[in-house]
Amino acid sequence: MTFYLIGIDGGGTSCRAAVAAPDGRILGRGKSGAANILTDPETALANIAGASRAAFEDAGLDPAGIANASAIVGVAGHNVGDAVHYVKRRLPFAVAEIESDGLIALQGALGGKDGAVAILGTGTIYIARNGDAVSYVGGWGFTIGDHGSGARIGHALLQESLLAFDGIHEGSPVTDSVMAEFNNDPRDVVDFARLAKPGEFGRYAPRVFEHAERGDAVALRLLKAAATTVDEALDVVVSRGSERLCLLGGLAPLYRPWLAERHQKHFVEAEADALTGAVALAAARFGSKEVGA
Amino acid sequence: MTFYLIGIDGGGTSCRAAVAAPDGRILGRGKSGAANILTDPETALANIAGASRAAFEDAGLDPAGIANASAIVGVAGHNVGDAVHYVKRRLPFAVAEIESDGLIALQGALGGKDGAVAILGTGTIYIARNGDAVSYVGGWGFTIGDHGSGARIGHALLQESLLAFDGIHEGSPVTDSVMAEFNNDPRDVVDFARLAKPGEFGRYAPRVFEHAERGDAVALRLLKAAATTVDEALDVVVSRGSERLCLLGGLAPLYRPWLAERHQKHFVEAEADALTGAVALAAARFGSKEVGA
Repeated sequence: MTFYLIGIDGGGTSCRAAVAAPDGRILGRGKSGAANILTDPETALANIAGASRAAFEDAGLDPAGIANASAIVGVAGHNVGDAVHYVKRRLPFAVAEIESDGLIALQGALGGKDGAVAILGTGTIYIARNGDAVSYVGGWGFTIGDHGSGARIGHALLQESLLAFDGIHEGSPVTDSVMAEFNNDPRDVVDFARLAKPGEFGRYAPRVFEHAERGDAVALRLLKAAATTVDEALDVVVSRGSERLCLLGGLAPLYRPWLAERHQKHFVEAEADALTGAVALAAARFGSKEVGA
Repeated sequence: MTFYLIGIDGGGTSCRAAVAAPDGRILGRGKSGAANILTDPETALANIAGASRAAFEDAGLDPAGIANASAIVGVAGHNVGDAVHYVKRRLPFAVAEIESDGLIALQGALGGKDGAVAILGTGTIYIARNGDAVSYVGGWGFTIGDHGSGARIGHALLQESLLAFDGIHEGSPVTDSVMAEFNNDPRDVVDFARLAKPGEFGRYAPRVFEHAERGDAVALRLLKAAATTVDEALDVVVSRGSERLCLLGGLAPLYRPWLAERHQKHFVEAEADALTGAVALAAARFGSKEVGA
């Protein structure tokens, strides 16, 4: 039986898979539902297998080859030991390694080159690679980290809306729009916030960017504070030697013009996506091809 | 049967009661366990009755008089309709009104005079009284409000400790002390924070005051930011006419020297505690005595 490589990009809403030849050449792609190994490992396992089957079918290959394949599985929560061990033992592949979703994104974005990625989405995290050394800065989640993330920006907007309601800070069109959405009743804002998940706060972040572009004073203040947190984290990765910075995640295109001039010269476009990165890592570790070669 | 007044100061850790003559003269006091009408109304009801019995016994009175008494019950969550209706119907008194814990604190602190209280504890809220008009500023809870509170200060300290760990911000002895407590492992900080209740974050607040007094740069920055939120809220109550400001809550004595010079001339000491305030309100509404007369 021929030997294949599999790359998996597993996320909270969908799971994507690619099957590749031993040299890393992608033969087919597939997709399935959510693959969150922390909150629902059984569903994650089913969707990792389902996306792999779809990729084999897309390539015109017999899915029986999955059991003989070597895979890199990129997922959030790769550093939570129990979940990783549980999932790893139950994966349908001959050999598999679980890596962070950030690492496969870095591999896809930078290919074989050194540098760092800033993942600016509902959360934020910075990952730098220098030769074989990979280091993480930030992250840590919404409760006590993820500065500059969509969740934190949205949370800050709701907070400012209440401060404006109380007359403690000046309001503006962006805070007015939030209060109008909540019937101008601060208790409705509180009820929403008490149960809101990071993604629900994050849905308010694009509104801050939109109003800042129109010169809204509150949106400008919130956005400048958020951009400062990103600039400060980028300072750390640059000071540690990263000269190529790639902005990834849903907020990346919105953020770029608001980031400090000193970083603009370092920004590069992503070479490829995270799924391609997972396949490249699989080719380097299990196949016949060097990373980035 | 003689007619008595009852004041209740119900809190998340204990419930205090006082029994008074119709003119508001306190005859006896009693105490029992937690009285949180939102999270555990049955226990709250049992402890309100228990504290009332203890107060009658302390006064040498027959507790049967409770059923004939008129009471002011001061509790958190007074503005959550369902809980209030449920508890109010089941109280053991002939007549009772449920008021906010803040309002009875204001009544105790200011007596019959106009002014405002700033309650600076695990949470923060500002309550102003101008004649019959009572207005609230701030509050709204830890998730999206309570700026300057012990919970927010403690949360900010944990957050700065992770930023220092990552090299994004400068560390200091106060962030070093936090990281040492969590085995210098940021994941331990995240694990704690993910499940921490406001009171658990709040336990780190006094440490910020202590280190700020010794000149710790991070503690000074966090404390100045927190004090600014208090000053801004006090600006609102002063601008609306409050000339007497009383600082209450566990952080009040710590905060006072850090608040703006412009507010210092407005600060007054509390005349009495919240339980005394509850009795005074009961005397004004149901007894033979005017508030503050």
